[in-house]
Amino acid sequence: MSELAEYLKAGRERVEAGLEKYLPGCGGPLAGHVESMRYSLLAGGKRVRPVLVMAAYETVTGDPMPDGLMPVPVAIECIHTYSLIHDDLPAMDDDELRRGMPTNHIRFGEAEAILAGDGLLTFAFELLSRPMPVDPADQLRITNIIARAAGSNGMVGGQCLDIAAEGTEVNLDTLELIHGLKTGALITASLQAGAVAAGATPEQFAAITSYGRAIGLAFQIADDLLNVESTPEVLGKAAGSDAERGKATYPALLGLDEAKKKARGCVEEAVAAMGVFSGRGRMLELLAAYIIERKN
Amino acid sequence: MSELAEYLKAGRERVEAGLEKYLPGCGGPLAGHVESMRYSLLAGGKRVRPVLVMAAYETVTGDPMPDGLMPVPVAIECIHTYSLIHDDLPAMDDDELRRGMPTNHIRFGEAEAILAGDGLLTFAFELLSRPMPVDPADQLRITNIIARAAGSNGMVGGQCLDIAAEGTEVNLDTLELIHGLKTGALITASLQAGAVAAGATPEQFAAITSYGRAIGLAFQIADDLLNVESTPEVLGKAAGSDAERGKATYPALLGLDEAKKKARGCVEEAVAAMGVFSGRGRMLELLAAYIIERKN
Repeated sequence: MSELAEYLKAGRERVEAGLEKYLPGCGGPLAGHVESMRYSLLAGGKRVRPVLVMAAYETVTGDPMPDGLMPVPVAIECIHTYSLIHDDLPAMDDDELRRGMPTNHIRFGEAEAILAGDGLLTFAFELLSRPMPVDPADQLRITNIIARAAGSNGMVGGQCLDIAAEGTEVNLDTLELIHGLKTGALITASLQAGAVAAGATPEQFAAITSYGRAIGLAFQIADDLLNVESTPEVLGKAAGSDAERGKATYPALLGLDEAKKKARGCVEEAVAAMGVFSGRGRMLELLAAYIIERKN
Repeated sequence: MSELAEYLKAGRERVEAGLEKYLPGCGGPLAGHVESMRYSLLAGGKRVRPVLVMAAYETVTGDPMPDGLMPVPVAIECIHTYSLIHDDLPAMDDDELRRGMPTNHIRFGEAEAILAGDGLLTFAFELLSRPMPVDPADQLRITNIIARAAGSNGMVGGQCLDIAAEGTEVNLDTLELIHGLKTGALITASLQAGAVAAGATPEQFAAITSYGRAIGLAFQIADDLLNVESTPEVLGKAAGSDAERGKATYPALLGLDEAKKKARGCVEEAVAAMGVFSGRGRMLELLAAYIIERKN
C-alpha cells in the first residue's frame, strides 16, 4: 500500500471511530431516528473532509491532531452527510442509490430523511461547541468558518443554484460559482478549521485556503469526469446520470481533455501553495494528486 | 396598553430590527433563496422565544440586554422559523397555511422550502459564533445549549416522535415527552441562553430552567386549547385540525377543564421559580400568565 493510501486508511479509521464515539445516543423512542442518522453516516465514503481537517492540523504543527479535537472532523462529516441526505430527496435530486445502498428516504421514508438531515446538521454544531482543548475564541472562529461554508453563502446556496440551473444553459462562470459554493466551500472550511485549531499564522492560513480552493475545484472536475467515464459498479451510484439530466459539467462545457487539463492545473496550484510549510505539506500534496486519480 | 403588552411589543420590534440587520445578504443569483428565508422569517409571529432570551437577561442583571448580544435571540428565531418551514412540508404535517399566509413550500416549492430551512438553521450557528461582547467560553456554552435543544434530543427528536405518534393511541406521558422535546426544549434553551449571557449564578440558572420547563408545558397546553376553541380567522391557521387528524392533545386526553387547570398549575410553578430574583422576575411572571391567556 502506498504511503498516501495508508495515511488515508488510518485517517478514515480514526474518523469512523470518532463517529462511533460521538454519535448522538437517544433513548428508546428515538431509536428509529438514531438508526436513520447512523445509516447514512456509517455508509462508508472516503471521509475526505474530516481527513483534510487532520491533515491541515498536521501540516501546520508537524504533529498528529490530538484526540480532543476529533469533534471538529466528526462535525464536518455530519454536515457532509446531512447534505447528501437532503440532496437525494425526491424534491431535490431524487436519487435512489448512494454509495451502493438505498438512499435515506428510500430506506426510512421522506419525513425521517428530512429529520435525519436536520438532526445531523444540528448535532454538528453541538459537537463544535463542546469543551475542547483549544482557545475558546479560536473554537468560535472554527465554528463560524464551518457555518458560513455550510450555509446560504456556501453549500446550501450552491445547492439552490444547482437546482435552479437544471435544464438551463449554464456557462463556465456559473458552473464554477455553483460548485465553489456546493462543494468547494466545505472542503476549504475543513482545511481552515484544522489550520485554526493548529494555531496557524495568517500566512499559513492563507496558504491552506489557496490549497483548499484549488483542490475543491479539482475535486468537482474529477467527480464530473468519473460520472462520464466510470460505471455504476465502481461508483456505487448511477454513472452517466449528469448527461442524462442535461446537467452542466466540466467535461460537457470544456471537453474531456480540457477538463482533465484544468484539473491537473488545480493540483499544481494546490501543491505550489504548500511551499510555505517547508516539507510538512507533503501529505496534502499527495492528497491533491490523489483527488484527480481516484476511481470512485 | 398593559405593561406586558408594551414590553412584548417593544421586544418584538427589537427582534424584528435584529432580523433585518443580521439576515444573510446573498448576491444576485441567490436572491430567490434569500427571499424564501425572509418570507417565513418576517411573516410575523409573536417572537416569544427571542423575547424570552432578552427577558431572562434582564431578570438576571436588572439591565436591558445590550445590542451586541442580539445575534443570540435572532439566531433562536431563525431556528424556530426553520422548524416551522420543515414541519409544514408535505412529507411532514403537510400544512398549506401558516400565520394566515401560504406556507413556504406552497409559495416557493418544496426544494426551496427544504433549503430555506437548512439555510436558516445553519445561519443561526453562524450568528452564534460571531464575535460578541460575552466571554467566549460562555458563548460556546450558549451555542451548545441551543444546539442540544434544537437537535435530536430536543426539537428534531420531538418532531420525529410526533410524526411517529400520528394515528396511534398516545398517553399523557408520551404526550409530555413529545412536547417537552418539540416545544419545551427550545423555550427553555432561550431562557438559559439569556441567563448565561447575563452571567447567571448556578442558582439563578436553575430557577430560569424551572421557569422554562413550566412555561414550555403551559405553552403547549395553551396551543392545544386554542386549536380546539379558536377560529381560523383568529389563529391564522386551520382550527380544529388536531382533532381532525386524530392527534393526541391535552384537552383530548384530560378534558378541557383539566387541561386548563394543568396549564394554570404550570404558570403558578413558573411564577414561584422567580422568587430568587427578588422582584426582577416580574416581567417573566407576567409573561407566564400571558401564555395561557393569549388568543392566537
